[in-house]
Amino acid sequence: MKRIFEIDPWLIQTHRFDQADKRLQESITAIGNGYMGMRGNFEEGYSGDYLQGTYIAGTWYPDKTRVGWWKNGYPEYFGKVINAPSFIDIGIQINGETIDLAKTKTRDFDLALDMHQGLLTRSFIAEVEGAEVRLTFRRFLSAVIKEAAFIDVAAEVISGRAKIKFDAGINGNVVNEDSNYDEHFWVPDQEDADKGFIQMTTKPNPFKVPQFTITVMQALRLDGEPAVGTRTTAPGQLHEQLEMLCDAGEGVHLEKDVVVVTSRDVKPDEQASRATALMQAAQANTFAQSLDAHTAVWAKRWAQSDVAINGDDAAQQGIRFNIAQMFMTYYGEDKRLNMGPKGFTGEKYGGATYWDTEAYVVPMYLAVTPPSVTKGLLEYRHDQLPGAYHNSQQQNLAGALFPMVTFNGIECHNEWEITFEELHRNAAIAFAVYQYTAYTGDESYVNGPGLEVLVGIARFWADRVHFSQRKQQYMIHGVTGPNEYENNVNNNWYTNTMASWCLEYALARLPKGDQDVVAKLAVSPEEADHWQDIIDRMYKPVDHELGIFVQHDTFLDKDIRPASSIPADQRPINQHWSWDRILRSPFIKQADVLQGIYFLNDRFSKEQKEANFDFYEPLTVHESSLSASIHAILAAELGKEEKAVELYARTARLDLDNYNNDTDDGLHITSMSGGWLAIVQGFAGMRYDEHGLRFKPFLPTNWSGYSFKLNYQGRIIAVTVGDTAEFELIAGPAIDVTVSGKMIHLEEGAAHAQRINI
Amino acid sequence: MKRIFEIDPWLIQTHRFDQADKRLQESITAIGNGYMGMRGNFEEGYSGDYLQGTYIAGTWYPDKTRVGWWKNGYPEYFGKVINAPSFIDIGIQINGETIDLAKTKTRDFDLALDMHQGLLTRSFIAEVEGAEVRLTFRRFLSAVIKEAAFIDVAAEVISGRAKIKFDAGINGNVVNEDSNYDEHFWVPDQEDADKGFIQMTTKPNPFKVPQFTITVMQALRLDGEPAVGTRTTAPGQLHEQLEMLCDAGEGVHLEKDVVVVTSRDVKPDEQASRATALMQAAQANTFAQSLDAHTAVWAKRWAQSDVAINGDDAAQQGIRFNIAQMFMTYYGEDKRLNMGPKGFTGEKYGGATYWDTEAYVVPMYLAVTPPSVTKGLLEYRHDQLPGAYHNSQQQNLAGALFPMVTFNGIECHNEWEITFEELHRNAAIAFAVYQYTAYTGDESYVNGPGLEVLVGIARFWADRVHFSQRKQQYMIHGVTGPNEYENNVNNNWYTNTMASWCLEYALARLPKGDQDVVAKLAVSPEEADHWQDIIDRMYKPVDHELGIFVQHDTFLDKDIRPASSIPADQRPINQHWSWDRILRSPFIKQADVLQGIYFLNDRFSKEQKEANFDFYEPLTVHESSLSASIHAILAAELGKEEKAVELYARTARLDLDNYNNDTDDGLHITSMSGGWLAIVQGFAGMRYDEHGLRFKPFLPTNWSGYSFKLNYQGRIIAVTVGDTAEFELIAGPAIDVTVSGKMIHLEEGAAHAQRINI
Repeated sequence: MKRIFEIDPWLIQTHRFDQADKRLQESITAIGNGYMGMRGNFEEGYSGDYLQGTYIAGTWYPDKTRVGWWKNGYPEYFGKVINAPSFIDIGIQINGETIDLAKTKTRDFDLALDMHQGLLTRSFIAEVEGAEVRLTFRRFLSAVIKEAAFIDVAAEVISGRAKIKFDAGINGNVVNEDSNYDEHFWVPDQEDADKGFIQMTTKPNPFKVPQFTITVMQALRLDGEPAVGTRTTAPGQLHEQLEMLCDAGEGVHLEKDVVVVTSRDVKPDEQASRATALMQAAQANTFAQSLDAHTAVWAKRWAQSDVAINGDDAAQQGIRFNIAQMFMTYYGEDKRLNMGPKGFTGEKYGGATYWDTEAYVVPMYLAVTPPSVTKGLLEYRHDQLPGAYHNSQQQNLAGALFPMVTFNGIECHNEWEITFEELHRNAAIAFAVYQYTAYTGDESYVNGPGLEVLVGIARFWADRVHFSQRKQQYMIHGVTGPNEYENNVNNNWYTNTMASWCLEYALARLPKGDQDVVAKLAVSPEEADHWQDIIDRMYKPVDHELGIFVQHDTFLDKDIRPASSIPADQRPINQHWSWDRILRSPFIKQADVLQGIYFLNDRFSKEQKEANFDFYEPLTVHESSLSASIHAILAAELGKEEKAVELYARTARLDLDNYNNDTDDGLHITSMSGGWLAIVQGFAGMRYDEHGLRFKPFLPTNWSGYSFKLNYQGRIIAVTVGDTAEFELIAGPAIDVTVSGKMIHLEEGAAHAQRINI
Repeated sequence: MKRIFEIDPWLIQTHRFDQADKRLQESITAIGNGYMGMRGNFEEGYSGDYLQGTYIAGTWYPDKTRVGWWKNGYPEYFGKVINAPSFIDIGIQINGETIDLAKTKTRDFDLALDMHQGLLTRSFIAEVEGAEVRLTFRRFLSAVIKEAAFIDVAAEVISGRAKIKFDAGINGNVVNEDSNYDEHFWVPDQEDADKGFIQMTTKPNPFKVPQFTITVMQALRLDGEPAVGTRTTAPGQLHEQLEMLCDAGEGVHLEKDVVVVTSRDVKPDEQASRATALMQAAQANTFAQSLDAHTAVWAKRWAQSDVAINGDDAAQQGIRFNIAQMFMTYYGEDKRLNMGPKGFTGEKYGGATYWDTEAYVVPMYLAVTPPSVTKGLLEYRHDQLPGAYHNSQQQNLAGALFPMVTFNGIECHNEWEITFEELHRNAAIAFAVYQYTAYTGDESYVNGPGLEVLVGIARFWADRVHFSQRKQQYMIHGVTGPNEYENNVNNNWYTNTMASWCLEYALARLPKGDQDVVAKLAVSPEEADHWQDIIDRMYKPVDHELGIFVQHDTFLDKDIRPASSIPADQRPINQHWSWDRILRSPFIKQADVLQGIYFLNDRFSKEQKEANFDFYEPLTVHESSLSASIHAILAAELGKEEKAVELYARTARLDLDNYNNDTDDGLHITSMSGGWLAIVQGFAGMRYDEHGLRFKPFLPTNWSGYSFKLNYQGRIIAVTVGDTAEFELIAGPAIDVTVSGKMIHLEEGAAHAQRINI
C-alpha cells in the first residue's frame, strides 16, 4: 500500500514530486476521452524512469506469438494497443537549461487531476541560472471534439530575466515497453511542416489484421493569438520552436491544440483535410472556452452518477476517482470500442477487451449511464459473433466462444490456460444480456441479436461438456475458473454452474425471440432436449460435510490453510512466490464459487451463502482487482459489516492506495466499478430482477451517510442513506420499490420522497 | 507413413530425388561425430524448400522468452543450439549453369548413407548446355579427428566439353528457422583469406550465458594435390574458386577438408593456430586414407553392438540405422555433452538435454558401449547439480530439480507445464543411477557423486509433496506425467510412484556411501524418518474395480474410448486436433502408468501388468517416439507377440518410415534405442538386477533369427535366437545367466556356447 496523493473530495492532488513514484503518479493522473488517452507523462519531457503512454482506442498491432511452443488452437498473435505518437510534447529551455524534473532545481510543486472533468494541472517554480520561473501546465482531452486535445502552458517569471524557448512537437518515434525485440510498430508516412502534422501507418503483419493510419496535427496560440513557430521535421516527428525573453513579473502563455484522426474513421488520404477542419473548429475557441464546453458535458454525466459519501473523505475520493476514470475510458460514443482492463493508462493487457466488461462494468453502467451506453457494450459482442464462431472452430468445437482478449472478436491472448480454458467469460457475456434485460426492461436486444449470442454460447457449452460414463453426469474438464491462481482444473463449480445457467437462459428466451431470428437459429427439439439433459445432469461438485460448493474436483485435497498464515512480507504472493507454488496453494486470487453465488444470488439460501463465504473468503488473497467488490457485496448481505467496509476500501481505493503494488503499470479501470457495486449492491443492498428493484440499506459505522442515483427504466431515483434511508424519484413515472422487505411507492419530486428507518 | 529409402541391411539408399521430400531426405541422411553434425543438405546448394542445418555440439544461445506472460519461476530464456556456419558448401557451375537439383536437368540420381561408418555419398548426371557431367559427392565427419570434416567431389564429363567452376566456401550468414524475428545469433569476428578461415562469436546475451567463438577453416586438394583457389571474403563468409575445362572422358576431383575449432576447447585468439595445426594433420592424408582410419574406429563400435536380424531386411535396416545415428550423436568423448532428442539432425528441441537420455538411452548404452560412455552421462548430471539446486530454488523448493531441458543444468525450456510440472525427469535421473549400478556392478558413482545426486533429488521430492489433511496421505499436485497429452494433473501415478522410489533408493544407498560424501550431505535421522513417512503414506491412485493403477486423480472421469475410434484421417491427433481437444481426450501420447511398470518391473504381478496394459495400451496413440518401445517390451513379456512385433516395427523404423509424419524436422535420436530395447528386453526378455542377468527369449514369427551382443561387467556375451537360443561368452570371466527360468553356465569361447530350446 502506498498513497502519494492527498485526500480531497474532487481533486487528486499532491504537492510533492518523488522520482521513485513517477510511474505510479503517471497512472493515477492518466486522462482520456474514450477516443484516446494518456498517462501522466510530462509535457516538457523527463529523463528519469517513466512509462511513455499515449493510446488511441482501437489502433492495435498483432504481436506474433507463433514460436517454438505453438500448438493447434493457440492464437496466432498477441494483440496489443500500441503506443501512439506522443503529442503533448512541449520541451522547455530557460536560459539554456532544459527543464526536466529529474534534474532541474524546482520548488512549490503542485499536481492535480480535477475529477469534475478530467483536467490535469501541474505547476512548479524552476530555479535556473538567472531566473525563477513558475511553469503551469493544464491539459484535457475533449468530450466535445473527441479528436481534440488541449494543452496550455503558462510561464511566469518570478525573478530575474528568462530567455524561454518552447519546442512543441509530435513524436512518433515510440515503442511499447513490452514489445518483443524493441519492435517499432509505426512506419512514418509523411511529415508536413507547413500544415503542422505527421502521418504514420502501422507496419504490415501476416495475420490479416488491418493496418492503421493516423494523422496528428498541432496548432499553437501564444498569449491568445494564433502563432506559428519554426517548424522542422524528421521521420515521424514534428518540432515547432518559439522563443521569447521575459523579465520578472512578465510571462507567456502557450496553448497547443492537437487533433488526432485515424483510419478507423477517415481514409488515410483524407486525414490531412479532416484534421485541418477539426483544427479550425478547435482553434475557434480559446483553451478556457474549450474547457468550459467540456466541463458542461461532464456536469451532465455527474448529475446522473455521482455518489456522495459523508464522513469519510478517502472513501469519497475513491468512488469519484473510479467513476471519473471509467467515464474517461468509455462512455459509449463508439460501438466498435470497449473498455480495456487498463483503459488508456498503460500498455499491460494490451488495451483489449476482457470479460471484465460484462462481469463488472455492465452492472454499474446499467445504473449510471443512459441505457444506450450499456446496450452498446452488448452490441459490441453481437458484432463480433463471427470471431466467436471462429474461436470455437479453432478448438474443434461448435457454437460461439467469445474471446478472453480481443479487439475484433478473435482471441488474441497467448496463454493456452487462459485462451481456451478460462471459458467462463462465455457465461458472463450471456449473463450481461440477462442483466441488461432485467434491469432496463428493454427486450429488443435479447429477442434479436442477443438471442443469436445466447444460442451461439449455448451451442458452445453443449459441445464443450463431456458425459462421464463412470459418473453418469456431464462434466467440464480442463478449465481455468475466475481464480486464475489455478489453471486447468476439472469441474470448476462456477464454470459448470454458469454453463448450465446459459443453457437454461437460452431455452427460456427462445420461445420469446423474434420470429426471423428464431427461424434462422433453428434450434431443433432434439437439440433443446439435449440442452435440458445437460442442465439436468450437470455435475456441480459439493461437499456435504462442509456444506459448501467445491471450487473444483480436487480442491479439498490441497493443503488448506488461511491466507492469514502467509507472512506479510510475502504479499502479494504473485510478486513473491513462484507460479508453481501459487498454483498448488489453496489461496484464491478472486471470487470463484462466490462469484457464482453473487451472480445467481437468489438461487441460494442464506446458510449456503454463509457457509461458502466463511470457507472461501479466508483463503482469498484478493490479488485480482476484481475480487474485493464481490466479497464486499456478499459480506454486506450476510451482515458482516466490518468485512464489507474493509473490502470496500480495498476496491474503491485500490489504485489510489496502490494496494496490490502494481498500479505503476496502469489503473485497474474495469474493476473500478467495484466501489460503486460495493456501495449500491453491498451497503444499500440493491437487487433487481424482472419484477423490480429491492434494497436493504445499512450505514457503515464510520460513515455519516451516502447517496447515489440510479437511472432505472426511464427514471432517475436518488437514494440517500444516513440514520434513515430516503428514496426520491427525481424524474420519471411512479414506481414501487422494496426496501428491507417493505414495498414503498415513489412519485416524482422531492415532496414524494420516502424516508424509511433502517 | 512414408518410406523414401530402399531396404538394404547396411545402406540407406535411394535412386529418386523428389523435391517434396527434401526435408525428410535431409533428416534421414544426417551425419555426425559427437562433436558436430549436419542434415543432408547439398554441397552445391539448393534453391527449393529445405532446412539448413549444421550444428556444433554445445554452442548454443539463450533465446529470450521473458515477454508479457512471464511469471515468477518461469525460465528466463529458451536455450537452443544454433545453426553453425555451413562448411560443406561447394557451389558448382558447369558451362555457366549453376548446378541446383531444384532446377538443373539431371538423371541417374543416387544417394546413400553407409551405416558402417556414416559415409554419405550422392551422385547424378547433370545435363547442361554442351555437356553431361556425372557429379559424385562423398562426405563424413571424422571419428579420428573430431574437429575435421572431409568432403570429396568428383566431376566426370560423360559427353561434350565442360567448363567447371567450383566455389568452395564457408557461410556464417545463417539463421535458425525457428528464431524469433529472424534473429542472427552469430557476429563475424574476422575472415582470413590467406589462411582460409572465418571466425565468429555468438552475440551478447543478458542471461550470463557464455558467448561462443568458433573458427572454421578449409583447405582443398585438386586431383590429389593441395590447391588454393581464388579466395574472397565477405562478413562471415569465405569463398574459394577454382575453374577447369574438361572434355568427355576427363574429370576432376576436388577434396575439401574442414576444421572447426570452438571456444569450448580453445581460446578465441588461439583458434587460428589450433585450426592450422589440425588442418595440417587432416591434410597429411587423402580423403580415402582419412576414410579408412575413420571406418576402422566404427568397425570396433559395431563389433560390440551390432544386432543382426534374419528374415526381415526392413527390421534389420531399422535397428542398424538407429544404432548408427545414436553413435554419430554421442559416443562419450566429451563429458560436457549429452544427447539431444534430435541430435544434430534438426533445430527442434534446441539440441538440449532431455530426460530421454536417462529413460531411454542409458538402458541400451549400458550394454552396447564401454561402461565409461554411460558413466559419462551420469557424471554430466552430477556436474550440473548446482543448476539443479538453482532450478529448485526458482520454484521456492528445497533440493535439486534437474531440468527438463538444459545445456548447463539450468532449465531453459519455456512452457511452465513442462518446466516445473514434468517433474518425473527427476526420477529418471535417479533411476539411471540405479540401472548403471545394477548392470555394471560399479558402485564408485553411486557411493560418491551419485549419492549427492540421489539426496538432492530426494530432498526435492520431500519438499514438493504436500500432506492432504483430508486424505491423510502425501500427494503431488500439479504435474505433467510422461503422457504430455495432459498437463497439470494431480497425483499422476507414475510420478508419485517414482518419487517414492527415489526416496527409497536414497535411503537404501545412504548407509553404503563414501564417508565424506555422507558427512557432507548430513541427512539427519529426522529427515530420513520424514522420507520414510512419505514413502509409507504416498497416495498412488488405484481403481480396484478395474484392477488398475489410475493415471491421475480424475482420469477415469474422462470420455474413455479406444484410440481405434479415432478416424484414420485425424491421426496423428497432434497434427489434426486442437490442443484443448487433445488435453481433454482419453488418448495417451506415450507410456505413463506403463512406464512405471516397465521401470519397476519386478514389483508388479503378471495380473497387474496385464490389467494395466490391456486398459492403457488401447488408449495410447504412440505419438511420442518414446512410446512404442516400452509397450513392445511389456507386450513381449505378456506373451502378446503380435503386438510386440507391430510396435517393434514402429519404433525401429519410426524415422525411416516417417510414422508420425514429423521426421522432416529431424530424427528422433534419443528414442532410437527403442528398437534395441524391444529386441533385447522385449523379444529376448533380458532383465537384470544386482543378482545378475535373466532372459526369456522368443522368435517373432516372421523372423528366422536375430542376434545381439551385450557388454556386461567386463564380458562380451553374444545372444543368438532362432529356433533355439544360443548364448556365447565371447570374452571375459565365466558367468551364470538365467534363461527362461533355467540357470546356464557360460565360459569363454564358442566351444562353451550353450544352446537352449525356447
